[in-house]
Amino acid sequence: MNSEELFNQIRLKQSFLCVGLDTEMEKIPDHMKKNDLPLFAFNREIIDATHDLAIAYKPNVAFYESAGTSGWIQLEHTVRYIRENYPDLFIIADAKRGDIGNTSRKYADAFFREMDCDAVTVAPYMGSDSVLPFLHYEKKWVILLALTSNKGADDFQFQRSGDHEPLFETVLRKSMDWGNSNNMMYVVGATRASMLLKVREIVPDHFLLVPGVGAQGGDLAEVAKYGMNARCGLLVNSSRAIIYADDSLRFAEEARLKAQEAQVDMGRLLKQRLGDTRP
Amino acid sequence: MNSEELFNQIRLKQSFLCVGLDTEMEKIPDHMKKNDLPLFAFNREIIDATHDLAIAYKPNVAFYESAGTSGWIQLEHTVRYIRENYPDLFIIADAKRGDIGNTSRKYADAFFREMDCDAVTVAPYMGSDSVLPFLHYEKKWVILLALTSNKGADDFQFQRSGDHEPLFETVLRKSMDWGNSNNMMYVVGATRASMLLKVREIVPDHFLLVPGVGAQGGDLAEVAKYGMNARCGLLVNSSRAIIYADDSLRFAEEARLKAQEAQVDMGRLLKQRLGDTRP
Repeated sequence: MNSEELFNQIRLKQSFLCVGLDTEMEKIPDHMKKNDLPLFAFNREIIDATHDLAIAYKPNVAFYESAGTSGWIQLEHTVRYIRENYPDLFIIADAKRGDIGNTSRKYADAFFREMDCDAVTVAPYMGSDSVLPFLHYEKKWVILLALTSNKGADDFQFQRSGDHEPLFETVLRKSMDWGNSNNMMYVVGATRASMLLKVREIVPDHFLLVPGVGAQGGDLAEVAKYGMNARCGLLVNSSRAIIYADDSLRFAEEARLKAQEAQVDMGRLLKQRLGDTRP
Repeated sequence: MNSEELFNQIRLKQSFLCVGLDTEMEKIPDHMKKNDLPLFAFNREIIDATHDLAIAYKPNVAFYESAGTSGWIQLEHTVRYIRENYPDLFIIADAKRGDIGNTSRKYADAFFREMDCDAVTVAPYMGSDSVLPFLHYEKKWVILLALTSNKGADDFQFQRSGDHEPLFETVLRKSMDWGNSNNMMYVVGATRASMLLKVREIVPDHFLLVPGVGAQGGDLAEVAKYGMNARCGLLVNSSRAIIYADDSLRFAEEARLKAQEAQVDMGRLLKQRLGDTRP
Protein backbone atom coordinates (compact mmCIF):
# COMPACT_ATOMS: atom_id res chain seq x y z
CA MET A 1 0.00 0.00 0.00
CA ASN A 2 1.39 3.44 -0.88
CA SER A 3 0.51 6.77 0.72
CA GLU A 4 -2.10 7.57 -1.93
CA GLU A 5 -3.94 4.33 -1.21
CA LEU A 6 -3.64 4.96 2.50
CA PHE A 7 -5.14 8.44 2.14
CA ASN A 8 -7.94 6.98 0.03
CA GLN A 9 -8.82 4.63 2.86
CA ILE A 10 -8.78 7.56 5.27
CA ARG A 11 -11.14 9.52 3.02
CA LEU A 12 -13.43 6.52 2.59
CA LYS A 13 -13.69 5.70 6.29
CA GLN A 14 -13.30 9.29 7.55
CA SER A 15 -10.91 7.86 10.10
CA PHE A 16 -7.19 7.71 10.78
CA LEU A 17 -7.51 5.20 13.59
CA CYS A 18 -4.91 2.53 14.23
CA VAL A 19 -6.01 -0.13 16.70
CA GLY A 20 -3.15 -1.48 18.78
CA LEU A 21 -3.41 -5.21 19.39
CA ASP A 22 -1.49 -5.36 22.69
CA THR A 23 -3.18 -8.63 23.42
CA GLU A 24 -2.32 -10.59 26.56
CA MET A 25 -3.86 -13.49 28.48
CA GLU A 26 -4.11 -11.53 31.73
CA LYS A 27 -6.38 -8.92 30.14
CA ILE A 28 -8.66 -10.70 27.71
CA PRO A 29 -12.14 -11.70 28.96
CA ASP A 30 -12.24 -14.94 30.93
CA HIS A 31 -14.54 -16.69 28.48
CA MET A 32 -11.93 -16.19 25.72
CA LYS A 33 -9.15 -17.86 27.68
CA LYS A 34 -10.46 -21.36 27.07
CA ASN A 35 -9.90 -21.01 23.34
CA ASP A 36 -7.02 -23.00 21.80
CA LEU A 37 -5.56 -19.79 20.40
CA PRO A 38 -6.98 -17.23 22.81
CA LEU A 39 -4.97 -14.21 21.66
CA PHE A 40 -5.91 -14.82 18.05
CA ALA A 41 -9.55 -15.56 18.89
CA PHE A 42 -9.73 -12.30 20.82
CA ASN A 43 -8.05 -10.35 18.01
CA ARG A 44 -10.40 -11.83 15.42
CA GLU A 45 -13.44 -10.62 17.33
CA ILE A 46 -11.94 -7.18 17.85
CA ILE A 47 -11.03 -6.92 14.16
CA ASP A 48 -14.44 -8.12 12.96
CA ALA A 49 -16.09 -5.55 15.22
CA THR A 50 -13.93 -2.57 14.23
CA HIS A 51 -12.54 -3.14 10.71
CA ASP A 52 -14.80 -0.56 9.06
CA LEU A 53 -13.75 2.12 11.57
CA ALA A 54 -10.01 1.55 11.59
CA ILE A 55 -7.39 2.16 8.92
CA ALA A 56 -4.66 0.10 10.52
CA TYR A 57 -4.01 -2.61 13.10
CA LYS A 58 -0.82 -2.69 15.07
CA PRO A 59 0.00 -5.89 16.91
CA ASN A 60 2.79 -5.18 19.37
CA VAL A 61 5.11 -8.13 18.84
CA ALA A 62 6.29 -8.25 22.47
CA PHE A 63 2.89 -9.42 23.64
CA TYR A 64 3.03 -12.42 21.32
CA GLU A 65 6.69 -13.28 21.91
CA SER A 66 6.06 -13.41 25.63
CA ALA A 67 3.64 -16.28 24.98
CA GLY A 68 6.41 -18.31 23.31
CA THR A 69 5.91 -20.29 20.12
CA SER A 70 2.15 -20.28 20.59
CA GLY A 71 2.26 -16.49 20.71
CA TRP A 72 4.23 -16.33 17.51
CA ILE A 73 1.71 -18.62 15.80
CA GLN A 74 -1.15 -16.42 16.99
CA LEU A 75 0.59 -13.32 15.66
CA GLU A 76 0.93 -15.01 12.27
CA HIS A 77 -2.74 -16.05 12.37
CA THR A 78 -3.76 -12.49 13.20
CA VAL A 79 -1.84 -10.97 10.31
CA ARG A 80 -3.13 -13.61 7.90
CA TYR A 81 -6.71 -13.13 9.10
CA ILE A 82 -6.58 -9.41 8.41
CA ARG A 83 -4.87 -9.90 5.06
CA GLU A 84 -7.38 -12.49 3.85
CA ASN A 85 -10.56 -10.89 5.15
CA TYR A 86 -9.88 -7.17 5.01
CA PRO A 87 -7.25 -6.59 2.31
CA ASP A 88 -7.59 -2.79 2.51
CA LEU A 89 -6.35 -2.64 6.09
CA PHE A 90 -2.80 -1.56 6.85
CA ILE A 91 -0.89 -3.92 9.16
CA ILE A 92 1.91 -2.61 11.36
CA ALA A 93 4.24 -5.00 13.17
CA ASP A 94 5.20 -2.91 16.19
CA ALA A 95 8.50 -4.65 16.71
CA LYS A 96 11.03 -1.83 17.17
CA ARG A 97 13.72 -3.86 15.44
CA GLY A 98 17.08 -2.76 14.05
CA ASP A 99 20.46 -4.46 13.67
CA ILE A 100 23.45 -4.43 11.32
CA GLY A 101 22.58 -4.70 7.65
CA ASN A 102 22.47 -8.44 6.98
CA THR A 103 20.54 -8.95 10.21
CA SER A 104 17.99 -6.19 9.59
CA ARG A 105 17.35 -7.89 6.27
CA LYS A 106 16.37 -10.99 8.23
CA TYR A 107 13.95 -8.98 10.35
CA ALA A 108 12.50 -7.49 7.17
CA ASP A 109 12.07 -11.01 5.80
CA ALA A 110 10.30 -12.03 9.00
CA PHE A 111 7.70 -9.28 8.88
CA PHE A 112 7.36 -8.60 5.15
CA ARG A 113 7.89 -12.00 3.55
CA GLU A 114 6.98 -14.57 6.20
CA MET A 115 4.11 -12.45 7.53
CA ASP A 116 3.14 -9.94 4.84
CA CYS A 117 2.76 -6.98 7.20
CA ASP A 118 2.71 -3.55 5.54
CA ALA A 119 5.04 -1.84 7.97
CA VAL A 120 7.42 -2.48 10.81
CA THR A 121 8.56 -0.07 13.52
CA VAL A 122 12.35 0.34 13.59
CA ALA A 123 14.70 1.84 16.19
CA PRO A 124 17.21 4.34 14.77
CA TYR A 125 20.16 3.98 17.17
CA MET A 126 22.31 1.85 14.83
CA GLY A 127 21.89 4.25 11.90
CA SER A 128 21.38 3.99 8.15
CA ASP A 129 22.48 0.44 7.43
CA SER A 130 20.17 -0.85 10.17
CA VAL A 131 17.17 0.80 8.48
CA LEU A 132 17.84 0.56 4.73
CA PRO A 133 17.27 -3.22 4.41
CA PHE A 134 13.63 -2.70 5.43
CA LEU A 135 13.18 -0.30 2.51
CA HIS A 136 14.00 -2.83 -0.18
CA TYR A 137 10.48 -4.28 -0.19
CA GLU A 138 8.09 -2.64 -2.59
CA LYS A 139 5.03 -1.00 -1.03
CA LYS A 140 6.31 -1.83 2.44
CA TRP A 141 7.10 0.74 5.09
CA VAL A 142 9.56 1.55 7.82
CA ILE A 143 8.06 3.43 10.76
CA LEU A 144 11.10 4.92 12.44
CA LEU A 145 11.11 5.86 16.12
CA ALA A 146 11.65 9.61 16.34
CA LEU A 147 10.00 10.97 19.46
CA THR A 148 8.40 8.37 21.69
CA SER A 149 5.64 8.97 24.23
CA ASN A 150 7.31 7.45 27.28
CA LYS A 151 9.12 9.22 30.10
CA GLY A 152 12.48 7.71 29.10
CA ALA A 153 12.27 9.64 25.80
CA ASP A 154 13.89 12.49 27.74
CA ASP A 155 17.05 10.49 28.36
CA PHE A 156 18.48 10.60 24.83
CA GLN A 157 15.95 11.85 22.27
CA PHE A 158 16.38 15.41 23.51
CA GLN A 159 20.17 15.26 23.72
CA ARG A 160 21.20 18.43 21.91
CA SER A 161 24.07 18.50 19.49
CA GLY A 162 26.61 21.29 19.11
CA ASP A 163 24.20 23.30 16.95
CA HIS A 164 21.44 22.79 19.52
CA GLU A 165 19.32 20.35 17.58
CA PRO A 166 17.86 17.55 19.70
CA LEU A 167 18.61 13.99 18.64
CA PHE A 168 15.06 13.25 17.44
CA GLU A 169 15.36 16.09 14.93
CA THR A 170 18.67 14.71 13.67
CA VAL A 171 16.95 11.34 13.29
CA LEU A 172 14.21 12.96 11.19
CA ARG A 173 16.63 14.93 9.04
CA LYS A 174 19.14 12.16 8.35
CA SER A 175 16.58 9.48 7.70
CA MET A 176 14.86 11.58 5.01
CA ASP A 177 17.74 10.58 2.75
CA TRP A 178 17.10 6.91 3.35
CA GLY A 179 13.50 6.69 2.22
CA ASN A 180 10.65 8.91 1.14
CA SER A 181 7.07 9.68 2.09
CA ASN A 182 5.91 6.53 0.32
CA ASN A 183 7.96 4.08 2.34
CA MET A 184 8.78 5.80 5.60
CA MET A 185 6.74 7.09 8.51
CA TYR A 186 7.75 8.28 11.96
CA VAL A 187 6.62 7.48 15.46
CA VAL A 188 5.86 10.74 17.25
CA GLY A 189 4.30 10.44 20.69
CA ALA A 190 1.11 12.36 21.34
CA THR A 191 2.07 13.29 24.88
CA ARG A 192 4.07 16.08 23.25
CA ALA A 193 1.55 17.29 20.68
CA SER A 194 3.12 20.71 20.36
CA MET A 195 6.37 19.03 19.31
CA LEU A 196 4.47 17.94 16.21
CA LEU A 197 4.84 21.51 14.97
CA LYS A 198 8.61 21.10 14.94
CA VAL A 199 8.31 17.65 13.42
CA ARG A 200 6.10 18.98 10.61
CA GLU A 201 8.70 21.65 9.78
CA ILE A 202 11.18 18.86 9.04
CA VAL A 203 8.90 16.18 7.55
CA PRO A 204 5.84 17.99 6.15
CA ASP A 205 4.75 15.16 3.85
CA HIS A 206 5.41 11.97 5.78
CA PHE A 207 2.80 9.99 7.64
CA LEU A 208 3.23 10.01 11.41
CA LEU A 209 2.22 7.15 13.65
CA VAL A 210 1.04 8.74 16.88
CA PRO A 211 0.74 6.52 19.95
CA GLY A 212 -0.28 7.68 23.36
CA VAL A 213 -3.71 9.18 22.68
CA GLY A 214 -5.89 7.86 25.49
CA ALA A 215 -4.06 5.68 28.00
CA GLN A 216 -0.86 7.69 27.67
CA GLY A 217 -2.64 11.05 27.92
CA GLY A 218 -2.46 12.67 24.49
CA ASP A 219 -5.26 14.77 23.06
CA LEU A 220 -6.62 14.03 19.60
CA ALA A 221 -7.60 17.60 18.70
CA GLU A 222 -4.10 18.81 19.57
CA VAL A 223 -2.56 16.08 17.47
CA ALA A 224 -4.73 17.04 14.49
CA LYS A 225 -4.00 20.74 15.01
CA TYR A 226 -0.25 20.37 14.99
CA GLY A 227 0.25 17.18 13.01
CA MET A 228 -2.29 16.93 10.20
CA ASN A 229 -1.15 17.74 6.67
CA ALA A 230 -3.09 18.10 3.41
CA ARG A 231 -3.36 14.33 3.03
CA CYS A 232 -4.03 13.73 6.70
CA GLY A 233 -0.56 12.30 7.29
CA LEU A 234 -1.60 10.80 10.61
CA LEU A 235 -2.30 7.37 11.97
CA VAL A 236 -3.36 7.73 15.59
CA ASN A 237 -3.07 4.60 17.66
CA SER A 238 -5.30 3.49 20.48
CA SER A 239 -4.72 0.15 22.14
CA ARG A 240 -6.07 -0.57 25.61
CA ALA A 241 -8.82 2.06 25.54
CA ILE A 242 -10.42 0.15 22.66
CA ILE A 243 -9.52 -3.51 22.99
CA TYR A 244 -9.98 -3.68 26.77
CA ALA A 245 -13.01 -1.37 26.94
CA ASP A 246 -14.95 -4.24 28.51
CA ASP A 247 -14.21 -7.77 29.73
CA SER A 248 -17.66 -9.33 29.50
CA LEU A 249 -19.26 -11.30 26.69
CA ARG A 250 -19.94 -7.91 25.09
CA PHE A 251 -16.25 -6.94 24.84
CA ALA A 252 -16.23 -6.73 21.04
CA GLU A 253 -19.35 -4.55 20.90
CA GLU A 254 -17.89 -2.24 23.54
CA ALA A 255 -14.63 -2.10 21.60
CA ARG A 256 -16.65 -1.10 18.56
CA LEU A 257 -18.34 1.70 20.50
CA LYS A 258 -14.95 3.05 21.59
CA ALA A 259 -13.59 2.80 18.05
CA GLN A 260 -16.70 4.55 16.80
CA GLU A 261 -16.20 7.43 19.26
CA ALA A 262 -12.66 7.81 17.94
CA GLN A 263 -13.83 7.61 14.31
CA VAL A 264 -16.51 10.25 14.84
CA ASP A 265 -13.95 12.60 16.42
CA MET A 266 -11.51 11.89 13.61
CA GLY A 267 -14.14 12.43 10.93
CA ARG A 268 -14.99 15.82 12.44
CA LEU A 269 -11.32 16.82 12.63
CA LEU A 270 -10.72 15.75 9.04
CA LYS A 271 -13.66 17.87 7.90
CA GLN A 272 -12.61 20.86 10.01
CA ARG A 273 -9.09 20.86 8.68
CA LEU A 274 -9.34 19.44 5.15
CA GLY A 275 -12.98 20.10 4.15
CA ASP A 276 -15.14 17.39 2.64
CA THR A 277 -12.67 14.72 1.49
CA ARG A 278 -15.15 11.88 1.08
CA PRO A 279 -14.73 10.16 -2.30
CA MET B 1 24.85 -16.19 36.49
CA ASN B 2 26.56 -13.18 38.11
CA SER B 3 29.83 -11.57 37.05
CA GLU B 4 31.85 -13.60 39.58
CA GLU B 5 30.56 -16.86 38.12
CA LEU B 6 31.18 -15.56 34.63
CA PHE B 7 34.79 -14.69 35.47
CA ASN B 8 35.22 -18.15 37.03
CA GLN B 9 34.18 -19.72 33.74
CA ILE B 10 36.64 -17.49 31.91
CA ARG B 11 39.44 -18.56 34.27
CA LEU B 12 38.50 -22.21 33.95
CA LYS B 13 38.35 -22.26 30.16
CA GLN B 14 40.97 -19.56 29.61
CA SER B 15 38.64 -18.08 27.07
CA PHE B 16 36.27 -15.16 26.68
CA LEU B 17 34.76 -16.42 23.46
CA CYS B 18 31.12 -15.89 22.57
CA VAL B 19 29.95 -17.91 19.58
CA GLY B 20 27.32 -16.11 17.55
CA LEU B 21 24.63 -18.46 16.24
CA ASP B 22 23.61 -16.46 13.16
CA THR B 23 22.19 -19.62 11.70
CA GLU B 24 20.39 -19.54 8.35
CA MET B 25 19.28 -22.12 5.79
CA GLU B 26 21.25 -20.55 2.96
CA LYS B 27 24.54 -21.04 4.78
CA ILE B 28 24.37 -24.33 6.64
CA PRO B 29 25.86 -27.42 4.93
CA ASP B 30 23.59 -29.09 2.40
CA HIS B 31 23.44 -32.36 4.29
CA MET B 32 21.96 -30.54 7.31
CA LYS B 33 19.12 -29.01 5.33
CA LYS B 34 17.15 -32.27 5.19
CA ASN B 35 16.74 -32.29 8.94
CA ASP B 36 13.27 -31.53 10.35
CA LEU B 37 14.72 -28.71 12.44
CA PRO B 38 17.81 -27.85 10.41
CA LEU B 39 18.80 -24.67 12.26
CA PHE B 40 18.60 -26.42 15.60
CA ALA B 41 20.38 -29.54 14.34
CA PHE B 42 23.18 -27.37 13.01
CA ASN B 43 23.40 -25.39 16.26
CA ARG B 44 23.50 -28.58 18.32
CA GLU B 45 26.50 -29.88 16.40
CA ILE B 46 28.27 -26.54 16.65
CA ILE B 47 27.59 -26.34 20.39
CA ASP B 48 28.68 -29.94 21.05
CA ALA B 49 31.90 -29.27 19.15
CA THR B 50 32.77 -25.97 20.85
CA HIS B 51 31.14 -25.87 24.32
CA ASP B 52 34.42 -26.37 26.20
CA LEU B 53 36.07 -23.49 24.32
CA ALA B 54 33.30 -20.91 24.53
CA ILE B 55 31.91 -19.00 27.49
CA ALA B 56 28.74 -17.83 25.79
CA TYR B 57 26.46 -18.50 22.84
CA LYS B 58 24.61 -15.70 21.17
CA PRO B 59 21.76 -16.67 18.85
CA ASN B 60 20.78 -13.62 16.84
CA VAL B 61 17.00 -13.71 17.01
CA ALA B 62 16.50 -12.18 13.54
CA PHE B 63 17.80 -15.32 11.88
CA TYR B 64 15.17 -17.44 13.63
CA GLU B 65 12.28 -15.00 13.22
CA SER B 66 12.90 -14.90 9.49
CA ALA B 67 12.12 -18.63 9.39
CA GLY B 68 8.68 -18.00 10.90
CA THR B 69 7.17 -20.16 13.63
CA SER B 70 9.56 -23.00 12.84
CA GLY B 71 12.45 -20.61 13.42
CA TRP B 72 11.05 -19.55 16.76
CA ILE B 73 10.70 -23.21 17.79
CA GLN B 74 14.30 -23.88 16.76
CA LEU B 75 15.50 -20.90 18.79
CA GLU B 76 13.68 -22.28 21.84
CA HIS B 77 15.17 -25.72 21.22
CA THR B 78 18.65 -24.23 20.96
CA VAL B 79 18.37 -22.35 24.24
CA ARG B 80 16.92 -25.38 26.01
CA TYR B 81 19.62 -27.65 24.61
CA ILE B 82 22.37 -25.44 25.97
CA ARG B 83 20.62 -25.00 29.31
CA GLU B 84 20.07 -28.74 29.80
CA ASN B 85 23.41 -30.01 28.54
CA TYR B 86 25.86 -27.27 29.42
CA PRO B 87 24.43 -25.36 32.39
CA ASP B 88 27.61 -23.30 32.85
CA LEU B 89 27.28 -21.61 29.49
CA PHE B 90 25.98 -18.05 29.25
CA ILE B 91 23.15 -17.57 26.74
CA ILE B 92 22.62 -14.21 25.07
CA ALA B 93 19.48 -13.51 23.06
CA ASP B 94 20.76 -10.97 20.57
CA ALA B 95 17.40 -9.34 20.04
CA LYS B 96 18.06 -5.59 20.32
CA ARG B 97 14.65 -5.04 21.88
CA GLY B 98 13.29 -2.03 23.74
CA ASP B 99 9.83 -0.48 24.10
CA ILE B 100 7.78 1.43 26.66
CA GLY B 101 7.80 -0.09 30.14
CA ASN B 102 4.91 -2.54 30.11
CA THR B 103 5.99 -3.76 26.68
CA SER B 104 9.66 -4.19 27.56
CA ARG B 105 8.45 -6.31 30.45
CA LYS B 106 6.82 -8.58 27.87
CA TYR B 107 10.08 -8.86 25.95
CA ALA B 108 11.86 -9.67 29.21
CA ASP B 109 9.27 -12.39 29.87
CA ALA B 110 9.87 -13.79 26.40
CA PHE B 111 13.62 -14.18 26.79
CA PHE B 112 14.03 -14.71 30.53
CA ARG B 113 10.91 -16.64 31.53
CA GLU B 114 9.71 -18.40 28.38
CA MET B 115 13.26 -19.13 27.22
CA ASP B 116 15.59 -18.85 30.23
CA CYS B 117 18.33 -16.95 28.42
CA ASP B 118 20.88 -15.21 30.66
CA ALA B 119 20.97 -11.93 28.80
CA VAL B 120 19.24 -9.95 26.11
CA THR B 121 20.64 -7.12 24.00
CA VAL B 122 18.61 -3.92 24.34
CA ALA B 123 18.55 -0.70 22.27
CA PRO B 124 18.78 2.49 24.34
CA TYR B 125 16.88 5.00 22.19
CA MET B 126 13.69 4.96 24.28
CA GLY B 127 15.55 5.55 27.54
CA SER B 128 15.34 4.31 31.12
CA ASP B 129 11.84 2.90 31.28
CA SER B 130 12.50 0.83 28.17
CA VAL B 131 15.50 -0.82 29.86
CA LEU B 132 14.56 -1.13 33.54
CA PRO B 133 11.95 -3.90 33.11
CA PHE B 134 14.71 -6.23 31.88
CA LEU B 135 16.61 -5.67 35.14
CA HIS B 136 13.88 -7.05 37.40
CA TYR B 137 14.94 -10.64 36.83
CA GLU B 138 17.51 -11.96 39.27
CA LYS B 139 20.82 -13.06 37.77
CA LYS B 140 19.69 -11.93 34.32
CA TRP B 141 21.44 -9.29 32.27
CA VAL B 142 20.78 -6.40 29.95
CA ILE B 143 23.42 -5.90 27.30
CA LEU B 144 22.84 -2.34 26.18
CA LEU B 145 23.90 -1.10 22.76
CA ALA B 146 26.48 1.62 23.27
CA LEU B 147 28.84 1.74 20.31
CA THR B 148 28.01 -0.66 17.51
CA SER B 149 30.42 -1.98 14.91
CA ASN B 150 28.48 -1.05 11.78
CA LYS B 151 28.97 1.93 9.50
CA GLY B 152 25.62 3.46 10.52
CA ALA B 153 26.95 3.86 14.06
CA ASP B 154 28.33 7.18 12.81
CA ASP B 155 24.86 8.55 12.14
CA PHE B 156 23.75 9.08 15.74
CA GLN B 157 26.06 7.41 18.25
CA PHE B 158 28.66 10.10 17.72
CA GLN B 159 26.22 13.01 17.85
CA ARG B 160 27.87 15.38 20.29
CA SER B 161 25.91 17.22 22.92
CA GLY B 162 26.45 20.82 24.02
CA ASP B 163 29.31 19.76 26.30
CA HIS B 164 30.87 17.78 23.45
CA GLU B 165 30.14 14.31 24.72
CA PRO B 166 29.08 11.88 21.99
CA LEU B 167 25.75 10.10 22.44
CA PHE B 168 27.27 6.69 23.17
CA GLU B 169 29.08 8.17 26.17
CA THR B 170 25.83 9.67 27.45
CA VAL B 171 24.26 6.23 27.05
CA LEU B 172 27.02 4.69 29.15
CA ARG B 173 26.86 7.36 31.85
CA LYS B 174 23.10 7.54 32.23
CA SER B 175 22.55 3.80 32.16
CA MET B 176 25.00 3.24 35.01
CA ASP B 177 22.24 4.48 37.31
CA TRP B 178 19.83 1.86 36.00
CA GLY B 179 21.80 -1.25 36.76
CA ASN B 180 25.21 -2.35 37.94
CA SER B 181 28.13 -4.49 36.82
CA ASN B 182 26.24 -7.60 37.88
CA ASN B 183 23.24 -7.11 35.65
CA MET B 184 24.36 -4.85 32.85
CA MET B 185 26.89 -5.13 30.04
CA TYR B 186 27.49 -2.99 26.98
CA VAL B 187 27.89 -3.72 23.29
CA VAL B 188 31.05 -2.02 22.07
CA GLY B 189 32.08 -2.78 18.50
CA ALA B 190 35.63 -3.98 17.91
CA THR B 191 36.06 -2.03 14.72
CA ARG B 192 36.83 0.92 17.00
CA ALA B 193 39.13 -0.80 19.52
CA SER B 194 40.78 2.44 20.60
CA MET B 195 37.35 3.75 21.60
CA LEU B 196 37.43 1.06 24.28
CA LEU B 197 39.85 3.26 26.18
CA LYS B 198 37.18 5.94 26.46
CA VAL B 199 34.54 3.35 27.30
CA ARG B 200 36.72 1.93 30.10
CA GLU B 201 37.10 5.39 31.64
CA ILE B 202 33.32 5.50 32.06
CA VAL B 203 32.53 1.85 32.83
CA PRO B 204 35.72 0.31 34.27
CA ASP B 205 34.00 -2.67 35.90
CA HIS B 206 31.26 -3.73 33.50
CA PHE B 207 31.53 -6.60 31.07
CA LEU B 208 31.60 -5.56 27.42
CA LEU B 209 30.22 -7.67 24.61
CA VAL B 210 32.47 -7.04 21.65
CA PRO B 211 31.20 -8.05 18.21
CA GLY B 212 33.05 -7.51 15.00
CA VAL B 213 36.27 -9.39 15.61
CA GLY B 214 36.82 -11.39 12.45
CA ALA B 215 34.23 -10.82 9.75
CA GLN B 216 33.76 -7.18 10.72
CA GLY B 217 37.50 -6.49 10.92
CA GLY B 218 38.37 -5.99 14.58
CA ASP B 219 41.62 -7.17 16.12
CA LEU B 220 41.58 -9.31 19.24
CA ALA B 221 44.91 -8.07 20.70
CA GLU B 222 43.75 -4.46 20.38
CA VAL B 223 40.48 -5.30 22.08
CA ALA B 224 42.31 -6.94 24.99
CA LYS B 225 44.78 -4.07 25.21
CA TYR B 226 42.15 -1.37 25.50
CA GLY B 227 39.18 -3.27 26.90
CA MET B 228 40.32 -5.91 29.39
CA ASN B 229 39.92 -5.18 33.09
CA ALA B 230 41.13 -7.06 36.17
CA ARG B 231 38.33 -9.61 35.83
CA CYS B 232 38.61 -9.82 32.06
CA GLY B 233 35.40 -7.88 31.54
CA LEU B 234 35.16 -8.99 27.92
CA LEU B 235 33.06 -11.36 25.89
CA VAL B 236 34.32 -11.31 22.33
CA ASN B 237 31.89 -12.59 19.77
CA SER B 238 32.66 -14.48 16.60
CA SER B 239 29.85 -15.75 14.43
CA ARG B 240 30.42 -16.57 10.78
CA ALA B 241 34.19 -17.16 11.08
CA ILE B 242 33.44 -20.08 13.40
CA ILE B 243 30.06 -21.53 12.49
CA TYR B 244 30.56 -21.30 8.73
CA ALA B 245 34.25 -22.24 8.71
CA ASP B 246 33.37 -25.19 6.49
CA ASP B 247 30.29 -26.51 4.70
CA SER B 248 31.21 -30.17 4.34
CA LEU B 249 30.42 -33.12 6.61
CA ARG B 250 33.33 -31.89 8.73
CA PHE B 251 31.77 -28.49 9.47
CA ALA B 252 31.59 -29.03 13.24
CA GLU B 253 35.21 -30.17 13.49
CA GLU B 254 36.31 -27.15 11.46
CA ALA B 255 34.23 -24.89 13.66
CA ARG B 256 35.99 -26.43 16.66
CA LEU B 257 39.39 -25.68 15.11
CA LYS B 258 38.43 -22.03 14.58
CA ALA B 259 37.08 -21.78 18.12
CA GLN B 260 40.28 -23.37 19.38
CA GLU B 261 42.39 -20.80 17.55
CA ALA B 262 40.39 -18.06 19.23
CA GLN B 263 40.64 -19.75 22.65
CA VAL B 264 44.41 -20.12 22.36
CA ASP B 265 44.77 -16.45 21.48
CA MET B 266 42.46 -15.49 24.30
CA GLY B 267 44.29 -17.69 26.81
CA ARG B 268 47.55 -16.03 25.85
CA LEU B 269 46.08 -12.54 26.16
CA LEU B 270 44.55 -13.37 29.55
CA LYS B 271 47.94 -14.60 30.78
CA GLN B 272 49.78 -11.59 29.35
CA ARG B 273 47.47 -9.09 30.96
CA LEU B 274 46.23 -10.78 34.14
CA GLY B 275 48.90 -13.38 34.93
CA ASP B 276 48.02 -16.98 35.70
CA THR B 277 44.30 -16.87 36.58
CA ARG B 278 43.62 -20.58 36.26
CA PRO B 279 41.69 -21.92 39.27
